[in-house]
Amino acid sequence: MKGLDGLFAPRGVAVIGASRNPAKLGAVMARSLSTYDAPLALVNPRDPELHGSVAEAVDSLGAPIDLAVVCVPAAAAADAVAEAAKAGASAALVCAGGFAEAGHPEFQRALLDVVDRHGIRLLGPNTSGFLVPGRGLTASFVPSVGSVPAGGVAVVAASGGVNHALSFLLAEAGYGVSLAVGLGNAADIDAADVLDHLLADPATKAVALHIESVADGSRLAGAVARLSARKPVVALVVGRNDVGAFAKSHTGALATSWRTTRGVLRQSGAVLVDDERQLVDAVGTLSMIRLAPALSPGVGVVTAQAGPGLLLLDGLRGAGIRVPVLADETQRRLGELLPPMTYQANPVDTGRPGPGFGEVVRTAGDDPEVDLVAVYALTEPDSVDLVSELSPQTASTPTVVAVGGSTADVSAVRSGLHERGYPVATSPAALTHAIRALVEDACLNNRRSVDEPIPPVAVPQGPWDEHQAKTVLDTLGVRTPSRAACNTPEEAHAALDTLGGPVALKILDATILHKTEIGGVHLGIRTHAELSEALDALGVQRVLVERMAPAGVDLIVGARRDPVFGPVVLVGLGGTTAEALADVAVRAAPLSAAEAASMTDELLGRALLDGWRGGPVLDRRDLARVVRALGQVLLDAPQVDEIEINPLRLTRDGLVALDAVITGKEQ
Amino acid sequence: MKGLDGLFAPRGVAVIGASRNPAKLGAVMARSLSTYDAPLALVNPRDPELHGSVAEAVDSLGAPIDLAVVCVPAAAAADAVAEAAKAGASAALVCAGGFAEAGHPEFQRALLDVVDRHGIRLLGPNTSGFLVPGRGLTASFVPSVGSVPAGGVAVVAASGGVNHALSFLLAEAGYGVSLAVGLGNAADIDAADVLDHLLADPATKAVALHIESVADGSRLAGAVARLSARKPVVALVVGRNDVGAFAKSHTGALATSWRTTRGVLRQSGAVLVDDERQLVDAVGTLSMIRLAPALSPGVGVVTAQAGPGLLLLDGLRGAGIRVPVLADETQRRLGELLPPMTYQANPVDTGRPGPGFGEVVRTAGDDPEVDLVAVYALTEPDSVDLVSELSPQTASTPTVVAVGGSTADVSAVRSGLHERGYPVATSPAALTHAIRALVEDACLNNRRSVDEPIPPVAVPQGPWDEHQAKTVLDTLGVRTPSRAACNTPEEAHAALDTLGGPVALKILDATILHKTEIGGVHLGIRTHAELSEALDALGVQRVLVERMAPAGVDLIVGARRDPVFGPVVLVGLGGTTAEALADVAVRAAPLSAAEAASMTDELLGRALLDGWRGGPVLDRRDLARVVRALGQVLLDAPQVDEIEINPLRLTRDGLVALDAVITGKEQ
Repeated sequence: MKGLDGLFAPRGVAVIGASRNPAKLGAVMARSLSTYDAPLALVNPRDPELHGSVAEAVDSLGAPIDLAVVCVPAAAAADAVAEAAKAGASAALVCAGGFAEAGHPEFQRALLDVVDRHGIRLLGPNTSGFLVPGRGLTASFVPSVGSVPAGGVAVVAASGGVNHALSFLLAEAGYGVSLAVGLGNAADIDAADVLDHLLADPATKAVALHIESVADGSRLAGAVARLSARKPVVALVVGRNDVGAFAKSHTGALATSWRTTRGVLRQSGAVLVDDERQLVDAVGTLSMIRLAPALSPGVGVVTAQAGPGLLLLDGLRGAGIRVPVLADETQRRLGELLPPMTYQANPVDTGRPGPGFGEVVRTAGDDPEVDLVAVYALTEPDSVDLVSELSPQTASTPTVVAVGGSTADVSAVRSGLHERGYPVATSPAALTHAIRALVEDACLNNRRSVDEPIPPVAVPQGPWDEHQAKTVLDTLGVRTPSRAACNTPEEAHAALDTLGGPVALKILDATILHKTEIGGVHLGIRTHAELSEALDALGVQRVLVERMAPAGVDLIVGARRDPVFGPVVLVGLGGTTAEALADVAVRAAPLSAAEAASMTDELLGRALLDGWRGGPVLDRRDLARVVRALGQVLLDAPQVDEIEINPLRLTRDGLVALDAVITGKEQ
Repeated sequence: MKGLDGLFAPRGVAVIGASRNPAKLGAVMARSLSTYDAPLALVNPRDPELHGSVAEAVDSLGAPIDLAVVCVPAAAAADAVAEAAKAGASAALVCAGGFAEAGHPEFQRALLDVVDRHGIRLLGPNTSGFLVPGRGLTASFVPSVGSVPAGGVAVVAASGGVNHALSFLLAEAGYGVSLAVGLGNAADIDAADVLDHLLADPATKAVALHIESVADGSRLAGAVARLSARKPVVALVVGRNDVGAFAKSHTGALATSWRTTRGVLRQSGAVLVDDERQLVDAVGTLSMIRLAPALSPGVGVVTAQAGPGLLLLDGLRGAGIRVPVLADETQRRLGELLPPMTYQANPVDTGRPGPGFGEVVRTAGDDPEVDLVAVYALTEPDSVDLVSELSPQTASTPTVVAVGGSTADVSAVRSGLHERGYPVATSPAALTHAIRALVEDACLNNRRSVDEPIPPVAVPQGPWDEHQAKTVLDTLGVRTPSRAACNTPEEAHAALDTLGGPVALKILDATILHKTEIGGVHLGIRTHAELSEALDALGVQRVLVERMAPAGVDLIVGARRDPVFGPVVLVGLGGTTAEALADVAVRAAPLSAAEAASMTDELLGRALLDGWRGGPVLDRRDLARVVRALGQVLLDAPQVDEIEINPLRLTRDGLVALDAVITGKEQ
């Protein structure tokens, strides 16, 4: 068997710890597995009516057992997995808890020893299992999840409970599942393994990824990048708020940094969502439609009722989605289809839906600026048959439909439209999240560019005072103010003459990271008298004299080593408010110029960078060069732990690094 | 008939413009109304088989007609309403569009003339109507909305389409409707009228309010305040983003200021939500449970699956909801009910739900810190019967349950739990929004305090320069720095001696609102030489010399006249980032001290006010005094248009107003 096929497409399955007591886990598992069309061996050495061992089952069934479903307590699990491996199984599922998450890392280590020794792959422990509805394979201790239909969405969830909850919610929303797996403690098989498995799974059209913790950041990022290049990936990351203690009790792992994980997943091409309902809206839609890569897809909105259309428009605008005014020619054609006085510029308000509704939708989709059509309509079976109106879909523009109405009406319309290839939502908010996901995916795909590699960066040994740090920036091509490092008052006075006033005077000492807080910075010095006074106040010999920079908008840009993701870069706005908001964008290094240029898009205060109150406008490419350069420092200079420019000032003349700190190993 | 009873409980109904062509509006309306148990007159003078007029119908039926449902074009609507009024009708519903929203304000004025002359009340025009399922009354041109069951939620929607969409979504979520109305152009009957009607409607337990525009802000605020004191009100306000042109085409009214409307609705006791799904989560739950007023209710979380429980906890923490560690005694009792190693501090993780699950929920609810229990469980019919576990609910602590599972399982559990008084959600996000609504409602109710009125404020005639504005602040008890208004350089130098340095020197001129931008402010002046230099640079006679304030966190506090809501007060953080985020809280004046003290809670950057990086901590009562005083200025001084303190600095010694501007009528 190749890869994870032994787990997800086994030629035979054994339940180790099977039981004839229907309340026992082993019996529940056997019941779940009974619908799978392959030999099923019930193994329990203490029950003479069941198989005594996996090996014996293989002999007596005359068929290979690829998957062992282990339903024994934690202390006995490793032996059971070993027994299965020896009998030829290539995969095991251990459902029981009682391992690392419950203070017994030794049981988990024992499992991993078996994995290492026998090469068997292990799902779990501490998970409710997985399901592959298309094969009738339900390896879960919640048998009712077998009712989830087959479909195009793969669920890769950190938690078995979330795996089931998502599968049920997808089914409720009219979507089916290709594969749904809860990773539990992920002692062996982790999200990256499953994502790589899905690359070649033809049934999987889009992937829902639920993340609680990350052990190996670059492995996960790589797997997401590989998969999202071929199939849309939508990610829900837990842990925005402090949930640490409970999270640890759950899987035995600390919650990962929410912000960094989200940043790196987005960089790897995953669409991000905020909760499981948005996840269902997004991944269900993406399992039916994927837009071509685009910088900013245009959305045409067609609504049969203005009020819900207004909710939709408000939501789309809030997500920064382009709803372009339709071309004159489109509006002319719509004018022929619609009553006068209806709004036709975009949104297109049809008034009550009637015959011709489909033609309106197609006409909006034909507009040259429209890459995607969003439709909202209440079902009114008496006045319009939405399914036949939207069938055949002669226009080729992708279209998502939201329908409101009675449960029965909505269900019928949804089935009909699904069959005709339309994703269907049931409310304006759901439609907003669906559209947002399609647009976001298209934008992320558009960003997959290959850049000129950055030449290697040479950084001298530390420690680095501000002057030395800025000299590193100079070599990186990052602009710094004219300056002079001075060892005597005389040198400082000479520097004032050379640089011209006003200047800043700063203490130069690599051991002082927060110069301002200890009074180590004097600004706006114009005269020798002022300089002398400031030098006296500092009371040290080694100082930096530096030209003052013009006013502007302050950014913070940095790079540091993340324990999970390795070198990461950060961009934020300066000032305490931005800091209090933790308004920071994070990416892993190296990163493409397009990726780096996109980072400010997610800052809450991004309006400040686009000519706020007549101020300067940020050239994103300039910022991208700085960000990539800092990332490269960490990639090329193992002695550097962190490099930060704070502030990096946006002025009318571009970006200037006003202060810089490098920390790391000192020699 | 009293109030709106003629509309919502008519003794007889006439359809004016009835038709026997089933596709016509008049026929559809008649079909909708056919289930109502009262005489229905079909009126159309051009059809001899129908009644020729409302008066004739009254005679021939021998019954009063309270409600006229007018299904004629805009140009003919006023005459039809007048005819009905003369025949004794006390209410009319005009569905047709083609009025103010479509460039025909004259037709709308004609309708209002009839309303004024005859005292008839008018719903619409330009609405799909309303429904009262408990009376079998569906006055809507979407007959399928008659399938929405009777229940405890009243829907008051700006838009007929949203009214229907919400009613359907409530039904889908297992809730019913007491009354659901779309206001359309709201030419006569507006949201305030319906809210006041609901005060005495015993079937209505909670109210969903959808707002697109507000004509009379204080009328709406008053109605929400009256109603929310008795029944929970949940509000969804449209127009966070720019949707202006489309909104105007919809109802003929401009979108109201989103931020101000939300602030005033919250102040009036309405729970705010961000989209229609949250609205359904919130109002459905509040129609079954209302918490006692409380400052910060504690939530006990019980989860049968840790993963969904983690999503829930993350959401609750993000909403600032208290999830207290359970008392030792509670944890001891839980320890007896649950397997070892499960998390029991709160959340309480039961592992798979089994018999005894209900006892765990009740035990968590008995904790002295727990005012509300949130439960998540996947339905596992084989292992636990959630309905019987949670029945009878011996504990008196309110409990909301979320269940995941197959559509059939969830539906059965939901019905059973609803019957037993539990609100039921179907996902962690839905449960989060339900809990948030209950907590928010309890907090808002807790804030309904009556304060000492503020003594009248006397403000001299303007114009007001900074010194005069600060003198007004002095009379209000708002602290300002020591200062001297000086008319000569000699006075300025004397002031420096009196005040001691460092001082700020500012131009004093009521016509200059942005002193800093024209170089009108010099800071940090310590010596007479510096003062002379600064005076020369200013080049004016009249200046303010003022003691410099210590460092701190800058706020902006102001009051202005809103065209819709009248005098409003605003609180925000200082600095361009906060400004770029529009991070401002708004309330109407007058406001209670508790209300004013709550304003900073909704600022994104609120962490800065609570000792950020060892800085000062804001006393909310101090800020409340300043905010209320500014509001009072606008209430008492008609000549003042706006008063703003920017910045109001939070220092270790409390709040100090560093700059103040008053604008208004100059004499």
